[in-house]
Amino acid sequence: MRIIVVGAEGDIGKAACKELGSRHEIIRAGRSSGDVRVDMADRASVEAMYAKCGAVDAVISTAGNVHFARLGEYTEETFMLGLRHKVMGQVNLVLAGLAIVSEGGSFTLTSGVLDREPIRMGVAGAAANGAVGGFVLGAAIEMPRGLRLNAVSPGLLDVSVPRYGRWFPGHEPVSSKRVGLAYARSVEGAMTGKVIIVE
Amino acid sequence: MRIIVVGAEGDIGKAACKELGSRHEIIRAGRSSGDVRVDMADRASVEAMYAKCGAVDAVISTAGNVHFARLGEYTEETFMLGLRHKVMGQVNLVLAGLAIVSEGGSFTLTSGVLDREPIRMGVAGAAANGAVGGFVLGAAIEMPRGLRLNAVSPGLLDVSVPRYGRWFPGHEPVSSKRVGLAYARSVEGAMTGKVIIVE
Repeated sequence: MRIIVVGAEGDIGKAACKELGSRHEIIRAGRSSGDVRVDMADRASVEAMYAKCGAVDAVISTAGNVHFARLGEYTEETFMLGLRHKVMGQVNLVLAGLAIVSEGGSFTLTSGVLDREPIRMGVAGAAANGAVGGFVLGAAIEMPRGLRLNAVSPGLLDVSVPRYGRWFPGHEPVSSKRVGLAYARSVEGAMTGKVIIVE
Repeated sequence: MRIIVVGAEGDIGKAACKELGSRHEIIRAGRSSGDVRVDMADRASVEAMYAKCGAVDAVISTAGNVHFARLGEYTEETFMLGLRHKVMGQVNLVLAGLAIVSEGGSFTLTSGVLDREPIRMGVAGAAANGAVGGFVLGAAIEMPRGLRLNAVSPGLLDVSVPRYGRWFPGHEPVSSKRVGLAYARSVEGAMTGKVIIVE
């Protein structure tokens, strides 16, 4: 398969690429690195990415910014950032790709642990993750041409602990290998409309 | 208690007011009707609402627009409408009310059935509902002064069937009485961080 991975340089993106890269052709996309540049929060940029990539069989997104702050410190702008980027950005990948991705192909988005096990300063992430989960469930029933749609919801990755561990007290890190497998399960398997929890 | 109900003129708002109105003072708020006018999607408008209402013990939101369309027909603008109104609007009510609502008071938001039982043309609602659920879970752990936060997630109300029933094939309508009770459970009970499903 030809697979676009948006956010390929992040910890989760690397895990997905490592698992799928030996069996498939990976096109790495990102805001500031990769084979193709894309700003997911801008639908025209997503359309331009698809135009550059040509035929693809699967799209994986492991991208999506969210602002972290104490509950009382969010402004409309900082809270909306996650809704625009992590939610609308990933939704744009699906909407703009509906006519592009090969028949029977798939989209795999990324949510995360924060709407299951909330942490301090993580409420915008919790809301964004919940939205991604709702979108996957709602959109899967309307996908054309046998296209499938899932999200992977990983806990804190082992490789991310040095940078982010202190924000996740008591969270049991998950192995990058297992996170990579979850993306393979979505891309190479047959399920649709699922939030695949890795914890 | 003094309770603000935003969206009091809608089917769900009426159910909440009917249940709580005999025991509490209700201040009805809405975009185009009610004792106080408010546009939830504009934080300044929400702050003005609180300034007009004075001391309150609980805030209920049964409001929040979402655009309904086939999956392939959403634009960024129509999809974002639900994220701005149903999500950011309800989040604004909480954020702007953190320093206003009485100690031990509560916020009760509204999500809905679409992120559990999706329907055609309902994906923006599914995403918005998921976001509201994530927000409630994430924000409840950071609420100051003993404030509580829940959401009610009702199925299609019996009274809404004539207008909306055809979009919800096979959905079993829920009684308005039971929906009203769910808001009372959140406002008068002690739970926090819950999505109260009424189905």
